[in-house]
Amino acid sequence: MTVRSRILGLAVFLTVVGTVSAVGQAADPAAVRRDLTAWVAANQRPVVAELAELLKIPNHSLDSVNIRRNAALLVRMLAQRGFSTDLLEVPGAPPTVFGELRVPGADRTLVLYAHYDGQPTDPSRWSTAPFDPTLFDASQANGGQRIPLAGTGPTYPAEARIYARSASDDKSPIIAVLAALDALGAAGRQPSVNLKVFLDGEEEGGSDHMAEILTRYKDRLTADGWLFLDGPVHQSRALQVVFGVRGVMSMGATVYGPARPLHSGHYGNWAPNPAAMLIQMLASMRAEDGTITIANFHDDLTPVGPAERQANARMPAVEAQLLKELNLAGPEKAGTMLPDQLLVPAMNISGLQVGGVGALATNTIHTSARAAVDFRLVAGQRPERVQELVERHLRAHGWTVIHQEPSEATRAASPKLVQLSWGDGYAATRMAVDHPFSQAVSRSASAAIGRQIIEVPTHGGSLPMHHFTEILGVPVIVLPMVNHDNNQHAENENLRLQNLWEGIVLFGGVLARLGTEWRGVP
Amino acid sequence: MTVRSRILGLAVFLTVVGTVSAVGQAADPAAVRRDLTAWVAANQRPVVAELAELLKIPNHSLDSVNIRRNAALLVRMLAQRGFSTDLLEVPGAPPTVFGELRVPGADRTLVLYAHYDGQPTDPSRWSTAPFDPTLFDASQANGGQRIPLAGTGPTYPAEARIYARSASDDKSPIIAVLAALDALGAAGRQPSVNLKVFLDGEEEGGSDHMAEILTRYKDRLTADGWLFLDGPVHQSRALQVVFGVRGVMSMGATVYGPARPLHSGHYGNWAPNPAAMLIQMLASMRAEDGTITIANFHDDLTPVGPAERQANARMPAVEAQLLKELNLAGPEKAGTMLPDQLLVPAMNISGLQVGGVGALATNTIHTSARAAVDFRLVAGQRPERVQELVERHLRAHGWTVIHQEPSEATRAASPKLVQLSWGDGYAATRMAVDHPFSQAVSRSASAAIGRQIIEVPTHGGSLPMHHFTEILGVPVIVLPMVNHDNNQHAENENLRLQNLWEGIVLFGGVLARLGTEWRGVP
Repeated sequence: MTVRSRILGLAVFLTVVGTVSAVGQAADPAAVRRDLTAWVAANQRPVVAELAELLKIPNHSLDSVNIRRNAALLVRMLAQRGFSTDLLEVPGAPPTVFGELRVPGADRTLVLYAHYDGQPTDPSRWSTAPFDPTLFDASQANGGQRIPLAGTGPTYPAEARIYARSASDDKSPIIAVLAALDALGAAGRQPSVNLKVFLDGEEEGGSDHMAEILTRYKDRLTADGWLFLDGPVHQSRALQVVFGVRGVMSMGATVYGPARPLHSGHYGNWAPNPAAMLIQMLASMRAEDGTITIANFHDDLTPVGPAERQANARMPAVEAQLLKELNLAGPEKAGTMLPDQLLVPAMNISGLQVGGVGALATNTIHTSARAAVDFRLVAGQRPERVQELVERHLRAHGWTVIHQEPSEATRAASPKLVQLSWGDGYAATRMAVDHPFSQAVSRSASAAIGRQIIEVPTHGGSLPMHHFTEILGVPVIVLPMVNHDNNQHAENENLRLQNLWEGIVLFGGVLARLGTEWRGVP
Repeated sequence: MTVRSRILGLAVFLTVVGTVSAVGQAADPAAVRRDLTAWVAANQRPVVAELAELLKIPNHSLDSVNIRRNAALLVRMLAQRGFSTDLLEVPGAPPTVFGELRVPGADRTLVLYAHYDGQPTDPSRWSTAPFDPTLFDASQANGGQRIPLAGTGPTYPAEARIYARSASDDKSPIIAVLAALDALGAAGRQPSVNLKVFLDGEEEGGSDHMAEILTRYKDRLTADGWLFLDGPVHQSRALQVVFGVRGVMSMGATVYGPARPLHSGHYGNWAPNPAAMLIQMLASMRAEDGTITIANFHDDLTPVGPAERQANARMPAVEAQLLKELNLAGPEKAGTMLPDQLLVPAMNISGLQVGGVGALATNTIHTSARAAVDFRLVAGQRPERVQELVERHLRAHGWTVIHQEPSEATRAASPKLVQLSWGDGYAATRMAVDHPFSQAVSRSASAAIGRQIIEVPTHGGSLPMHHFTEILGVPVIVLPMVNHDNNQHAENENLRLQNLWEGIVLFGGVLARLGTEWRGVP
């Protein structure tokens, strides 16, 4: 079936709405699932073609020309499904792609969130070009071989993956929603809620303008709840609903040494060594088991309740599989389980740079040393407070903390001098597991897939959800679909196609059922 | 005066030897100094021209074509001064340039050591091409302007510097010795000792073949003492004689994390972070004040005696000037003096490399982290013992230490895995300050320059002196001439020309006087 004929299916649905499956009459979840599954089996190739069309457009948030090419394509794709569309603009920001689809008789409005921008790419580290979406019949890490995008039969191999920047993070959930609507339409079914879509162009770019966008367009965004489609499914490959996200605060640090590079023999032990100062600085902030050792860092944490502890305990244990997959002897802190560790703030060292190593090493005391750090925050923590605590800790350890290039006088006056550059960061958010919207989403998702979905108190990744809860005052929940082993943010990002097929069935089933569950109708 | 006519002066001396200044009759040091100084004033331009000719030839020890071009030029320069010459060869090594000049009547034989190879260069970090020797009328750091190599008058500006790889380390001392012989000859004077020169082509390359060369050519190298002309003068710019050198042992370290890069949000606090492991590893080995915290690391140290303590105390204090020059607030360990710190072993971190920093930072847990370290050793310490103690320390801290790329099985079995790669290293050496050769050199150098030379128990740099003391069983002393602020090993290496002029007077005066002092004749 072509894209055109799938769209036709939706158009038919829109004209016959009410005669097939009126809102308010709960559809049989098993029947919905059968319809969606059959549609997917017949439409894998056009869905992949539409995804590839979107993946071909580079999407770094600062590349304004290509960002707008992405937005234009998304507007076209939404319009083809009957959405009224718009670009939500604020000066200096990539446009937010907005779409609205009213459903006659629906009394709740759901907003679906995804982002279409992506992390920077270093093509030299990729095995295929990041914006040339390429299919493999299995994960490359498992010896997968390249196969044609158009496939070699009516369906793709079970473990096929498509490699491209944003294949998982976050373009494929957008395509899955569009396909789910096509599939519902083709079966003569309709969503159970009014629908809005909000496609962010600056998430990986730091969401600097999100507060401004939400504030300016608040009236357009009225809704009863939001579903974020970002992030991966559970590491066991089972689907999950996620009630909170970690926050994040990024920090760049430059530590200063002598004004010119020095021979380590002639000056070592007398001239301060910025690399040694940097490692001491970082070691003072973080214990070997990962515990953050900054004073008062844990004061603001929202206590973790019994509902969250129980949800964690019900989650399938993935640690053994993960250790094998990652070729690790054990976790950073012995005996810990991943979901529990996500409820604790983390300090990650993602970059260190001083002089050369290996064949490029020279016996030199360098003039400066640099690090990149990100703090992952949990409910109750805010980025600006993290900055305050880190800087207080460093000052208490004798550091002079500055935020711009130091003058000669500052260097001469400061035995321990560090320049910090902070990101804007995201606060953490976490909804109660037993909130009505939480339970409506959880129950309709379980109905969609025919089994209990995993309930996750907190997601590891950081999404700008705090803007939505704070500015719009709405409940926000995450319903992801992509594989956990997708290399997001790194080289060779990929999507396991099986996750795309399951995502279409999940999203279609939730759209068909959510209104019913939300009203408390069984 | 041209190079040709200077050489003629030496040829004249060689034919009239004995009639002007017989060996055994001590020349008046003040008269020698006057003659040498006058010669230098008249010959600055041809000396710089000869130095520039040598600096133009690239000299990385692995660049065998250019190394042999250097050696051929040195042979020609020595032969022009009447030396019998030879290349001391062992398979796979750059040639050692050997020269011998017998002096009728001399009863002691002195060997002069210098190396003609240089550290690797990264031209992108240099302000001028490393092998295009370029003159500035002052240090570039002090705003010096480029001037022609041929100069603009009979002498060069007082603070002029020549920029090129090995301008200081070590080609200029070779040129200074040749010029000193020219100057003595022009004044109808002769050396007071038989002379051999030993010009090493693999010092910066690690001196891997030095033991083999010394063993094979032991008979050619018989002598009563060696003078090493490598390294810089005192930071006060005063000349110094150095009785020992630090040893060195280089270590590369690679720490391993997960098999693929991970999103720091989804896995941070659970998956081991190799950058965090690396900083903990390094921090366990070295305190914030630079003290090495590896068990038993200080056990082998030869005690520092009163003579060495007194020599240190007599040295001019350079710390205030150095701190200003380096724009530093203070030394690594508060209140310490540089010469005392050189008698203590040092652990220098010269390289750190993980992921990206600044604009290239990504929120990733990386698969590995790398460091480059050099240990500076003091008398009594040997490199192989350092390796043993470091590896024992790491094992005691739970590390699995390997020396090649780990297998998947090794990674899966080792919670803390580090691959170490060690250099061959140099042992430290240190001669007694009151040894007869030590005092003969110190007194003749003081006579040469007309004031007490600074006596330094230990030099900061590492030279392969231990090979000479162990294999040849001869006393070895260092008599340097180049400026301390020469950026050796780094970009923009340079020689302050004033140091070259003083070096010629120093070496000429020592060659004229040493035989007399050595025999105890006043």
